Amino acid sequence: MKKQVSASVINRLPRYFRYLGELMNSGVERISSKELSKKMGVTASQIRQDLNCFGGFGQQGYGYNVEYLYGEIATILGLNSRYKAILVGAGNMGQALAQNTTFEKRGFTLVGIFDTDPEKIGKEIKGIKISDAKDIKEFIDKETPTMAIISTPRTVVNQVVRELTDMGIKAFLNFSYAEISPDDDVVVENIHLSDSLMRLCYKISSKEDNSENTEE
Amino acid sequence: MKKQVSASVINRLPRYFRYLGELMNSGVERISSKELSKKMGVTASQIRQDLNCFGGFGQQGYGYNVEYLYGEIATILGLNSRYKAILVGAGNMGQALAQNTTFEKRGFTLVGIFDTDPEKIGKEIKGIKISDAKDIKEFIDKETPTMAIISTPRTVVNQVVRELTDMGIKAFLNFSYAEISPDDDVVVENIHLSDSLMRLCYKISSKEDNSENTEE
Repeated sequence: MKKQVSASVINRLPRYFRYLGELMNSGVERISSKELSKKMGVTASQIRQDLNCFGGFGQQGYGYNVEYLYGEIATILGLNSRYKAILVGAGNMGQALAQNTTFEKRGFTLVGIFDTDPEKIGKEIKGIKISDAKDIKEFIDKETPTMAIISTPRTVVNQVVRELTDMGIKAFLNFSYAEISPDDDVVVENIHLSDSLMRLCYKISSKEDNSENTEE
Repeated sequence: MKKQVSASVINRLPRYFRYLGELMNSGVERISSKELSKKMGVTASQIRQDLNCFGGFGQQGYGYNVEYLYGEIATILGLNSRYKAILVGAGNMGQALAQNTTFEKRGFTLVGIFDTDPEKIGKEIKGIKISDAKDIKEFIDKETPTMAIISTPRTVVNQVVRELTDMGIKAFLNFSYAEISPDDDVVVENIHLSDSLMRLCYKISSKEDNSENTEE
């Protein structure tokens, strides 16, 4: 069994993974926690503490072996898994997501796409046919996917999630504007474009206010 | 000048805004901090504290007027602004983003789309022609957009951001896999699909490990 690790450490792991990948691409073989800390804008002691949660990987006076650490983090995150995923809602965003190759590199295989729109049903995206949403139960019973990517209109999100949970889906990646209120044993990651825009809007407008004030 | 508000409060404001919008749509006119706290899964005292940063809005024994609070948060976030935005990188994701109507509702107006691919240049998305990226400086000088949405391949992201910063862009919404290292006076919001997938993958795999352990 994996050690329980705090949510904030888990939240930071993808960033470590991303930076290490960039270092590897630039041919860097090892890095000290100090150098890594400068690149990432977190303290070196934070980095050592975070990576110690998983047994450390650094050697005194040598630093971290970039490729080894990259591989270990991938294992910790479970990125070598091949969880089956379905996509529900094949509008513009859903179709762009289905085209995206990130899923394959991050532990998931897209196995089905569903929509209710007769004009979309039957079309193919990357070799996967868009199926009628009414056939979703049969598909799930047969293929037993673990995760569903939700990009439906927001008015139906919570109903869709309830139904999919009843059919055995245990994880959701939510792209819709609505907040999912999941059962306790269901995991959710939200990608809220709208929230990011609002934060950006706030930062811009408060910066403008501040600079106006400075000029007074 | 606006009061300085902590980043964590700002991070929560879009969620308040989202919940209040849903309440409004369901015809709810007022709500107590206690009820709102139950819906949102944060403590009532947290809610009162957060909203007090902006001068409160609640009345003892009455609760919050939903529509008024919704409007006030919109004003705080600056959602009534009309910041001009450009989109750089019109691949699948970029095109889906350009189709998205969320920008208009969240303080931004998309005024230009840019790409380097001759097959994309000249095509129209929602009435906006995809322009050649080499004409971007002229466009920025004329239209003075505030924000750029970045959905280019990750290898060119930091170069693109540096150039756009030099041309006067002050805010970025980053959809690419690369991390942007901005200047101090530039604001960035990252939407990292990859990071969300990794977190989801970790949560699924550690849940599986735990349940295996329980069954032992």
